[in-house]
Amino acid sequence: MSVTRAAIAGYGNLGVSVARAVAAQADMALVAVYSRRATSPTTVPSPANAPSLAVVPTPLYPLADIAAHADGIDILFLCLGSATDIPTLAPGLAATCNTVDTYDNHGDMARHREAMDRAARAGGHVAVIAAGWDPGLFSLNRVLQQAILQGEPHTFWGPGVSQGHSDALRRIVGVRQAVQYTLPNAAAVTAAQHGEADAGAAHLRQCWVVADEQDHERIEQEIRTMPGYFAGYQVEVNFITAAEFAQDHTGMPHGGRVITSGTLQGPAGEYRHAMEFALTSGRNPDFTAAVQVAYGRAAHRLAAAGHTGAITPLEVAPHLLSPTPLDELIARYL
Amino acid sequence: MSVTRAAIAGYGNLGVSVARAVAAQADMALVAVYSRRATSPTTVPSPANAPSLAVVPTPLYPLADIAAHADGIDILFLCLGSATDIPTLAPGLAATCNTVDTYDNHGDMARHREAMDRAARAGGHVAVIAAGWDPGLFSLNRVLQQAILQGEPHTFWGPGVSQGHSDALRRIVGVRQAVQYTLPNAAAVTAAQHGEADAGAAHLRQCWVVADEQDHERIEQEIRTMPGYFAGYQVEVNFITAAEFAQDHTGMPHGGRVITSGTLQGPAGEYRHAMEFALTSGRNPDFTAAVQVAYGRAAHRLAAAGHTGAITPLEVAPHLLSPTPLDELIARYL
Repeated sequence: MSVTRAAIAGYGNLGVSVARAVAAQADMALVAVYSRRATSPTTVPSPANAPSLAVVPTPLYPLADIAAHADGIDILFLCLGSATDIPTLAPGLAATCNTVDTYDNHGDMARHREAMDRAARAGGHVAVIAAGWDPGLFSLNRVLQQAILQGEPHTFWGPGVSQGHSDALRRIVGVRQAVQYTLPNAAAVTAAQHGEADAGAAHLRQCWVVADEQDHERIEQEIRTMPGYFAGYQVEVNFITAAEFAQDHTGMPHGGRVITSGTLQGPAGEYRHAMEFALTSGRNPDFTAAVQVAYGRAAHRLAAAGHTGAITPLEVAPHLLSPTPLDELIARYL
Repeated sequence: MSVTRAAIAGYGNLGVSVARAVAAQADMALVAVYSRRATSPTTVPSPANAPSLAVVPTPLYPLADIAAHADGIDILFLCLGSATDIPTLAPGLAATCNTVDTYDNHGDMARHREAMDRAARAGGHVAVIAAGWDPGLFSLNRVLQQAILQGEPHTFWGPGVSQGHSDALRRIVGVRQAVQYTLPNAAAVTAAQHGEADAGAAHLRQCWVVADEQDHERIEQEIRTMPGYFAGYQVEVNFITAAEFAQDHTGMPHGGRVITSGTLQGPAGEYRHAMEFALTSGRNPDFTAAVQVAYGRAAHRLAAAGHTGAITPLEVAPHLLSPTPLDELIARYL
């Protein structure tokens, strides 16, 4: 089995998770990590949260060094922020290497796809884009469901931590620690499964806050009236102690589901059918990284087969994601 | 939009469902049906259970006429029986047209794939094989789950009608009507979702039987001791009236789910993640037909792009299944 030489650009939460995920693949080796914070070549520190890296010291380079190393990289995992880093840096990297990103700005996706397509074609590379869980796996399932049932897919996110809403809670005066979980509304999920009319708000925003007791009333009022984040939404506010917070609310669980219910013509009128894809992730960045690594394997294979340009998860044949050869997949899983 | 010219070989339960499914596609037209029972060209009767066909009279030909009509067929849906018809007839048809089948004999699949590959390549056609719900959609999900979580997928079938077990019940003396539902064991499903050890039998066999009251005890005893079908399984026997049977048990619902629970390395050891695909079908042959028709669309597109040979659902990019153009799929569902 040939080994895919993997590199990582950006070494935050996602980058560290990708490093661990690559270490778990028998057909991949991590050859380098690139970071804007690195100013000269060194070695990736073995952070407390990446123990598996301790066994394989990995060189850490400044981001600008990628071009000079491109011949030794089969796939570059873009683990840069979606807010500004991906739009400004990703096309330049796609011109240099095969890349895979988890870009998640739906409103900017058409522009991103076009920029990555142009850059990757110019460089003779493949750029797989939007290959996380949503967009990514959920997109694939929306298309599969729409193609077969010709109904409209419903997407539910959670239960899971919303980083943006948690940040908003922490900006309130007097809040010492806080997290916001997005929870799917069970009635809305059931309605989608049965093709029934909308059952109200699809999601509940559940807040867990640590603050002094005399501030509770004011803080809850500020949360419930915060425009754009909580005002107008179904909101639940819970105050807990710092000890309870440390014990129960420092993880990063997430999940969600895609559901389509549709009818097909049968002998006595229409019959209802439903398809559902559900994800429960114990730790969001690790699962996103596992998806990104699988699409990285596919990107390398597509490039080796002569493809170039931007490719979405909608265009990738499923077997290309697996380290298992096609004949064995057919024997075991078809 | 160009229209795909579809034809059907075999006009039993599945063939009639495919005819209805094709009629529901804006980008397909049914040009002919072929049946061994037809001895000379005629017109497909408008059966009570295919009302949509009444509006478009479709010619019905003997199966042997396909070769002479092949130039006018973009995709031939093979709706022949898996037991003997597919093994003997399918390769000859794949040499003549692009085909898609729902062959479901797992043990014979390697031979079938090779025979179809050889025939389709010789004819310059694409033969998509095993494109129903299992094998088919479930296979695709097993591979997706295995590729990302590297765990072993668990497959549960039901709740749904088992035709073979229903037939076995009806062979018992005194049984006037009977149906057997295969139900997934809820405890086993929960165990699979949480990655826990096997929770015993994965399925329950639920029987609904119409018979005279004096025969109930003997019939239940015969069911519970029937080797190969019920002996050694978790079995539930219910006796009902003919009226209850007619009202509640003449449908063909089915369903099932594919579940993989696996762990990924995280900062503080391993974290658990689970992926699940679930199907609820109000009428089994209609859903199978909807899947087969979607893969038929893909087969025609793959052939138009120059592919030849046998292709499994594991090898088909998801967007090829949808009538919606790729750019629009990306805008709406990515």
